Amino acid sequence: MRTLGIDPGTSATGWGIVEGEGNRVIHVAHGTIRTRADDPLPRRLLGIFEGLNQVIAEHHPTVAAVEDIFVSRNVQSALKLGHARGAAIIAAGLNGLPVFEYAALVVKKSVVGYGRAEKPQVQAMVRMLLAMGDAAPRDAADALAVALCHIHHAQTPGRGRAA
Amino acid sequence: MRTLGIDPGTSATGWGIVEGEGNRVIHVAHGTIRTRADDPLPRRLLGIFEGLNQVIAEHHPTVAAVEDIFVSRNVQSALKLGHARGAAIIAAGLNGLPVFEYAALVVKKSVVGYGRAEKPQVQAMVRMLLAMGDAAPRDAADALAVALCHIHHAQTPGRGRAA
Repeated sequence: MRTLGIDPGTSATGWGIVEGEGNRVIHVAHGTIRTRADDPLPRRLLGIFEGLNQVIAEHHPTVAAVEDIFVSRNVQSALKLGHARGAAIIAAGLNGLPVFEYAALVVKKSVVGYGRAEKPQVQAMVRMLLAMGDAAPRDAADALAVALCHIHHAQTPGRGRAA
Repeated sequence: MRTLGIDPGTSATGWGIVEGEGNRVIHVAHGTIRTRADDPLPRRLLGIFEGLNQVIAEHHPTVAAVEDIFVSRNVQSALKLGHARGAAIIAAGLNGLPVFEYAALVVKKSVVGYGRAEKPQVQAMVRMLLAMGDAAPRDAADALAVALCHIHHAQTPGRGRAA
């Protein structure tokens, strides 16, 4: 199972691809799709959509996993984040990938063992679990963490929350 | 100028198409794209995306206008609305339509002359301005109002807010 993890954001959308083979997990690729702050929202959303389209065309994931956010600093940032998640989910869905959503707490718990872990800890554990030479940048590390979380849950039937 | 107005929502997305010819506005079509509450979010977003795709293919609008919402009951509903708006904007953008955003206050002011008008008043004025036999349902009426708002602003250079 080749999983595309996505950490959506209007300015930076992290993505990471992890292959799960039996009880092994293999790092395939990761990256960050950036949009220009001075571009209008529609162009930024299309940038996220097209960036993920390209990632999917290149790496052929079979399933996508996105962090499910229930909290946000404020209404305005939630609305923004919603736009980016919408663009990401449409990109995965149009490419025929089933999309799974995992709460941030569940993602952290599955890679660090603790739901309230800090970002650098997630980065370090993702690097270790995937035997990466260097740690991935934060957004990409978060995306790899979601992918790892999905692989863990998919191996434990009945635990994942299909979307 | 044939304008597609969109009033996005996860459960109901209103759309309305208005043709602006000189100082005349002509009602072309309107409708509501509904998604099933028990479907997972990705399927609902794809439903909005595909519904709008179909509307665009059928009615060939040349520009899209979406209400820009800055307030929302709470973070969770803002996030939901953001998803729906993201799906709508991607549908318009992928079809090559420039997308314009108008604040709700501006939309109401342009059809009712008053920024804090109630929805039934918007419905009634949209019906009158477009010489429609029956009033459109609320979501579609709101979408027609955004289209009308764009046409008004496009005729007054320098007033619209391009996105």
